[in-house]
Amino acid sequence: MLPSGMPVQPRTPQGVIELLPPQQIAFQRMLDTIRRGFERFGFLPVETPVFELSEVLLTKSGGETEKQVYFAQSTGALKEGKAPELALRFDLTVPLARYVAQHENQLNFPFRRYQIQRVYRGERAQKGRYREFYQCDIDVIGKDTLSISYDAECPAVIYGIFAELNFGKFTIKINNRKLLRGVLTAYGVPLEKHADVLHEIDRLGKMSIDEVKARVKTVIEANTDALVDTLTNFSFDTLPAQFPDNADIAEGEKELRAVYDQALALGVPATHIAVDATIARGLDYYTGTVYETFLDENTALGSICSGGRYDNLAGHYTKSKLPGVGISIGVTRLLSFLVDDPAWGASASTAQVIVLAVDANLRSEYLRIGTELRAAGINTEVYGSDDKLGKQFKYADRAKVPLAIIMGGNEHKTGTVKIKDLRVAMDAAQKELELPRAGLVAKVKELLA
Amino acid sequence: MLPSGMPVQPRTPQGVIELLPPQQIAFQRMLDTIRRGFERFGFLPVETPVFELSEVLLTKSGGETEKQVYFAQSTGALKEGKAPELALRFDLTVPLARYVAQHENQLNFPFRRYQIQRVYRGERAQKGRYREFYQCDIDVIGKDTLSISYDAECPAVIYGIFAELNFGKFTIKINNRKLLRGVLTAYGVPLEKHADVLHEIDRLGKMSIDEVKARVKTVIEANTDALVDTLTNFSFDTLPAQFPDNADIAEGEKELRAVYDQALALGVPATHIAVDATIARGLDYYTGTVYETFLDENTALGSICSGGRYDNLAGHYTKSKLPGVGISIGVTRLLSFLVDDPAWGASASTAQVIVLAVDANLRSEYLRIGTELRAAGINTEVYGSDDKLGKQFKYADRAKVPLAIIMGGNEHKTGTVKIKDLRVAMDAAQKELELPRAGLVAKVKELLA
Repeated sequence: MLPSGMPVQPRTPQGVIELLPPQQIAFQRMLDTIRRGFERFGFLPVETPVFELSEVLLTKSGGETEKQVYFAQSTGALKEGKAPELALRFDLTVPLARYVAQHENQLNFPFRRYQIQRVYRGERAQKGRYREFYQCDIDVIGKDTLSISYDAECPAVIYGIFAELNFGKFTIKINNRKLLRGVLTAYGVPLEKHADVLHEIDRLGKMSIDEVKARVKTVIEANTDALVDTLTNFSFDTLPAQFPDNADIAEGEKELRAVYDQALALGVPATHIAVDATIARGLDYYTGTVYETFLDENTALGSICSGGRYDNLAGHYTKSKLPGVGISIGVTRLLSFLVDDPAWGASASTAQVIVLAVDANLRSEYLRIGTELRAAGINTEVYGSDDKLGKQFKYADRAKVPLAIIMGGNEHKTGTVKIKDLRVAMDAAQKELELPRAGLVAKVKELLA
Repeated sequence: MLPSGMPVQPRTPQGVIELLPPQQIAFQRMLDTIRRGFERFGFLPVETPVFELSEVLLTKSGGETEKQVYFAQSTGALKEGKAPELALRFDLTVPLARYVAQHENQLNFPFRRYQIQRVYRGERAQKGRYREFYQCDIDVIGKDTLSISYDAECPAVIYGIFAELNFGKFTIKINNRKLLRGVLTAYGVPLEKHADVLHEIDRLGKMSIDEVKARVKTVIEANTDALVDTLTNFSFDTLPAQFPDNADIAEGEKELRAVYDQALALGVPATHIAVDATIARGLDYYTGTVYETFLDENTALGSICSGGRYDNLAGHYTKSKLPGVGISIGVTRLLSFLVDDPAWGASASTAQVIVLAVDANLRSEYLRIGTELRAAGINTEVYGSDDKLGKQFKYADRAKVPLAIIMGGNEHKTGTVKIKDLRVAMDAAQKELELPRAGLVAKVKELLA
C-alpha cells in the first residue's frame, strides 16, 4: 500500500490491550486460574469462531449492540461492494445460544460450558472502554427446566477463583428479579415503569440513598421512600411477613434463600456473600437470581463478576425452551486495575534456570545440562552465543530468571558446577554455590521449591 | 435485521472449525502440551490484537496475502463508506515484527517469544482450507546478530512437543538456504532463476525424482540431473569436498552441521532428525536454516511444523537489524487429521467425579462432599436436581465422568458412602464399593491415580 522501503510507524489500533511479556505472563496466570476454577466444577470448554454470519449474529433488530458491531469482509467482497456477510462476536452469550441450538442433539443437558475468548465492540476510544477485550463466562443450560441448585453453584465458582487470585477481600452480592418485581408491584409501580425504576435503583452504591430516592420520584410519585427503604433494609425474616400475599416476593425469597444457603454449604464464607435487594443487573434479560461481585477496597472499579438466571437462551434459533444461569468475569477490567500496579507481573519469567555459556568449547555440555533439567520438568534456557559473561548476566537479570548455572573449564575438569541465585539483587552479596555435576538437578529443584 | 419471532437457522460460516466439548478438551490438551513445550525452553508469551491498522499490516504492496485479508469496520464506518481502517492478522509473523519494532526498547534481546493465536484468511471454501485457524509460533529475535545455536534449539523444541503429543513416529528435516544457493550457483543456475528451480525441487516427496528432473528442465537446460542428484544424495562428507571453492556451500554446510550436532546434544534422537538438502521452504523469506516436520506414517498431511532463519524481521517498521529464527506448528492441520479418528477426544471430560443426588433432603451433604473433593484438587460436579437416578446415571455416562459418588439415607445414617467406577461399561458388572465417609477423598485419589 506504501512505496516499499519507507518505514511505517509500528503501532496498535486504539482501544486494544497489548502487554509486555512479564505482564502477559501474569495475565496468563490469571486466565489459567480462572480456567482451573471453572474446570474444578466440571465445566466444559467451548470455543466459537471470532466471526458469525451477520444474519445469525444480529437477530435482534436495531439496538445499542448492533451499532457497535464490527463487520468483516475479505478484499474480494469489499471490492464488489457487497454487504458484509460476517460480523465479529460482541459477547459470548449470542454465540453460546447459536452453539447450543446448532448442536442441541449432541449435547448433554444440563449443559455446563465455559468459554474464555476475546470479544469486539466498536466503542469510541476512551479510558476503560475497549474495542477488544476478554470475557470469561460460565453458563449452565437446562432443557425445559433447570434446578435452582445451579444458581447456587455460581457464587461458589466465583469464590474459588477470586480467593485464589488474591486481589483482596471481595463480596458477592446476590438478589432475585422476582423479588424485585414483587416489591415494585406491591408499592404500586405499574409493570411498564419497572425498568425505569430499577435503572435508578441500580445507581445505589454510586449515589447516596437520598439522591436515588429523588431520582425514583421522577419516575413514580407515591411510595418512593418506602419502596427504596424496603429494598435497602431487606432481610429474609421481615420481607415475606410484610407482604404475605405477594407470590413474586414469596417465590423470589425462597429462591434467594436456597441460593444463599447452598452457597454456604458449598464453602462460600458468610463474610464473602451478601443478599443485596437493590441489585437489578440489566433490565430485560435476567428473570431470577442476579449476581455482582465487588472488591471491597476498590468498589469504584464496579462489578468484576456478574450474571444471573434467564428463562430462555436461544429463542431466536430454536423452539426448545432452554433456561440458563451464568456469570462472566471482567478480566479486562481487572487488568486495567492491575497494570497500574508497577509490581504486578514485574518479576515474572517462564524460564526457571539459565545455563550461561562461559566457554565456547563446552557448548555441548551446556546443551546437555539444559536437556537434563528440562527432562526433570524445569523450564530452562541455554544462553545461545558466546558473549562476555557480563552481557549474559545482564540478560539473565532483565529476564528475571531465578537461577543461573555456570560451568567453566575448571569446573568441567573437576566434575563440578556452580549455581548462582539471581533473585538476590545483582549488587548485593550473591549466593553462589559449587557442587558436584551429578547433584545439579536435585539442588536446582530444592532451590526452586 | 429480521422480523422478530422468526427463528434463524443456527450455523457457522464456512471455513471455520467448531468442536463439541469432548474434542475441544482434547484440542485444548494439545495446545497446553505445545505451550508447556515452549515454556520448557523459556519462551515468553505474547498476544497481539486480532486486528491491526490496515496501513501497518499491509506494508507490502500487492501480493497473494493481501488478496486474502479480512478487513474489519464498525457499523458507523461502514455507513460512511470509509476505507476499512482495520484488518485481521493473517499470520503471527507480521504482528511479531510490529510488536518487536514498537516495543524494541523494552524487550530483552535475544527476544524469545511464543504466540498461540488464531489467524484469518479469506480463502475459498474447500476441504483443508480454513478462514480461521490456529498458529503456534516460536521465534528468537536477535539484535544485529543471532548465534546459530538458536537454530539448533528449534528441532529440540519440536522433538519435545511431538514426542509428548504421541501422534506416531515423526521426522524433522533440516536444510540450509545458503547451501542450496551454493549448489544452484555451482551448477550454473543464474540467481534470478533460483526461486523457480527451488519451487520445482520443493515438489520432491509429492513427485518422483524423474518427474522433478523433467520439471527442472523446463526452467534450466543444462546440468539438471546432476543438480537434482547432488541434492538428493547430500552427505556432510562428500558435498564440500565436491565444491571446494564455493563459499556458500562451505558456510551452509558448517551451519547445517552445527544445527544437527547441537540438536543431538539437546537430546533429539538421530532417528528423528535428518538433513534433507531438497527442502527449500518458501522462496524469499528464509536465508539460512530451514525446517519441515512429517509424520512418518502420514506424509500426505504435509509438514506439520515448519520454519527457518531469516535475516531481518522488521525492516518495514524499524531501521534496527533484527535477524531471527522460528518455527510454526500447524495445529489446525493436525486437527483435521485427528477429527477423522472417532476415538480422538471421545472419552474426554473435565469432571473427574460426579456426586449424584439420591435424596433431596441430603443436598447440603452432597454440596459439602463436592467442596471437600475440590479442595483436594479433584474436579467435581454435583448433580443439581432431584431427577430419577437412572436419568442421573445416563447424564454421568454421556459426560464420561470416571467416578460417581452415591449416598442415600442408609449410607448417611451409617456414615458411609458408595463409589461407582463408571469407566466400566454400564451394562457390564460394575465396580462399586462402600466405604466410611471419612475415607472418601483418599479413596477417590487412589482410584483416579
